[in-house]
Amino acid sequence: MLGNFFYCNPTKLYFGEDSLDFLNTELPKYGKNVVLIYGGGSIKNNGIYDSVVKILNANGKNVAEIAGVMPNPTVDKLYEGIEIARKHQADFLLAVGGGSVCDYAKAVSVSVNCSEDPWEKYYIRFEEPDCETLPVGCVLTMVGTGSEMNAGSVITNPHTHRKIGHVFADEKIMPKFAILNPKFTLTLPHDQMVSGIYDIFNHICEQYFSGEDDNVSDYISEGLMRSVIHASRIANQDPQNYEARSNIIWAATWALNTLVSRGKSTDWMVHMLGQSVGAYTNATHGMTLAAVSLPYYRHILPYGVQKFRRFAINVWDVDPAGKTDEQIAHEGLAAMESWMRELGLVMNISDLGATPEMIDGIADGTLIMNGGYKVLDRDEIIKILKESLS
Amino acid sequence: MLGNFFYCNPTKLYFGEDSLDFLNTELPKYGKNVVLIYGGGSIKNNGIYDSVVKILNANGKNVAEIAGVMPNPTVDKLYEGIEIARKHQADFLLAVGGGSVCDYAKAVSVSVNCSEDPWEKYYIRFEEPDCETLPVGCVLTMVGTGSEMNAGSVITNPHTHRKIGHVFADEKIMPKFAILNPKFTLTLPHDQMVSGIYDIFNHICEQYFSGEDDNVSDYISEGLMRSVIHASRIANQDPQNYEARSNIIWAATWALNTLVSRGKSTDWMVHMLGQSVGAYTNATHGMTLAAVSLPYYRHILPYGVQKFRRFAINVWDVDPAGKTDEQIAHEGLAAMESWMRELGLVMNISDLGATPEMIDGIADGTLIMNGGYKVLDRDEIIKILKESLS
Repeated sequence: MLGNFFYCNPTKLYFGEDSLDFLNTELPKYGKNVVLIYGGGSIKNNGIYDSVVKILNANGKNVAEIAGVMPNPTVDKLYEGIEIARKHQADFLLAVGGGSVCDYAKAVSVSVNCSEDPWEKYYIRFEEPDCETLPVGCVLTMVGTGSEMNAGSVITNPHTHRKIGHVFADEKIMPKFAILNPKFTLTLPHDQMVSGIYDIFNHICEQYFSGEDDNVSDYISEGLMRSVIHASRIANQDPQNYEARSNIIWAATWALNTLVSRGKSTDWMVHMLGQSVGAYTNATHGMTLAAVSLPYYRHILPYGVQKFRRFAINVWDVDPAGKTDEQIAHEGLAAMESWMRELGLVMNISDLGATPEMIDGIADGTLIMNGGYKVLDRDEIIKILKESLS
Repeated sequence: MLGNFFYCNPTKLYFGEDSLDFLNTELPKYGKNVVLIYGGGSIKNNGIYDSVVKILNANGKNVAEIAGVMPNPTVDKLYEGIEIARKHQADFLLAVGGGSVCDYAKAVSVSVNCSEDPWEKYYIRFEEPDCETLPVGCVLTMVGTGSEMNAGSVITNPHTHRKIGHVFADEKIMPKFAILNPKFTLTLPHDQMVSGIYDIFNHICEQYFSGEDDNVSDYISEGLMRSVIHASRIANQDPQNYEARSNIIWAATWALNTLVSRGKSTDWMVHMLGQSVGAYTNATHGMTLAAVSLPYYRHILPYGVQKFRRFAINVWDVDPAGKTDEQIAHEGLAAMESWMRELGLVMNISDLGATPEMIDGIADGTLIMNGGYKVLDRDEIIKILKESLS
């Protein structure tokens, strides 16, 4: 922990099976015109939509809707939402869904009063908003991205096969509040549950596998990873286990709300590879990460042996006795692979629809980050993507 | 993680060796009349006072001072500070010091516009403020209490031998910002450094040794404890090690800013015992905790064997092979004792000035908490205090 840094995260979190009631505490703080944002309609089947609308009505809100936000929200959907929010003269955006819906709401928030093309401004030029932004609240129904307590937003441009995330600098872009009710996640299909779990785990890895200094953040990360592994095994066997699901939802929030990256460099190369795969295949985010992770980590292991060794011992309880550092490090990744297979994650990008013909394009769309143990060149990206095919 | 809970902590943290510059970012947000609050004058010797005053002047502030805030701030000092703040028509309170100075600033904040006696209202009846409070900022020069990012405030009434902490419910009582410059802590005497380190460690213990449920918070706590142990050993050998001191200051903040107690019951009995010892002896807070901890933990161990066993394995790397749960649990506490002796902590209350004649009074002043593995009765408190004498 050697660098200078800033931490501020004012998002209010209401946690637990009664947490939706606190919408009644928060809604009166914001103006009358609310835009309700949600995804494919599952919240209409499980009753969450009705509960939320009832609370909005009881609080006298004038509600417009942006429905059908897709798992990888597109720039066209963003343009559509901006128009709805403008027409409604929105005072407040209420996202009900998972990370995609929260990400999308933040994208609308910074775009409603923006006079430029938001895709160009925020996702190509990575600029910060210089206009008024709208306050966002979240009711979480899917777990993994941590979007409910950060200032990040990922948008996909399917025309150019680009899926790009921007972490905004100002904490005012973070949701004002988030409602985390573990019960809302109990109805998720198994593949979405484990995809979210791997997303959480990989968020921590991306921040952990970087830097040589001694840092509290890495110790917190090890604790979070152990907790995710433990709870995921219980939830995988017994998806209705409320305690396990509650631990998963809370770990998800803290895995990506900036805490465990304070004072550290970070990697994020798995996300860059996975996002580019997602832009070509429209596959579920967590699965794209799972499918490229092990080829990537095995490729960079020789450049960060000590950290992978520490990961093996402190996270996976690998016994170091009588082994070389490299052996210990590889045993850690082997333990991680076993766990990933146990959860039923997709372990290669072919199963997500990627083909050998796409590899060049996916490589072109992969942003190269420079915080990992090895800054990749294009040949290495091609090699990792090819290894990820099977 | 089974309960309903709320988390919000909006304090802005500026961390690093250049962090004092950010006073220039924060001060313009508040009114002209600032009360500068500090302790015994060490900040005048090490130059921090001059640097802060220069920044206050450059920002055009009209400054009054409350100097001489003592390590266990008294109710009389509080009354004095309230008068100074009222007379100055204070808009903002700037605390420069350690936990006592931050605690004191928060006590002044909730008292300036309070029409009742603040000792009676906040520390005897544990009520919340129903008046306007003043914003507080902190420049930290001592580490341990976490006061820079929480709503807690401990005040001592020497007339009645009562040292009582109140954790206020509203996040607006939390400091608006805190400046954490590890360099400011490098000049601390060794006993203050290790006292702060034990305070951090015990804060985590108080939140960890409670409850039977499976909880992310306990995993985060294990990571924090491992980090504190690791960094403290480096700092103990080499007090000028910036990296170790930076990890200690950051761990201190996160050990007591409500994060690791979310969704959990908590204990706090070591603090209740230690605070009562402090009210009789005026000893340094962290040392009072150190001096009563092992008699307390060994007393409650039989009621929480599984948690003490987990502590031994996950925090102290005790090898469980071939041992009973009780043996493993006791080995953990033995490892903790070795570490405490290695740091040079005070290990009994006699060395802090407590006498056998004080035991009854200390027991009378000990608030009994009900979140630990055994709710103590008076006989048990007497027994633990007597064991703490030597």
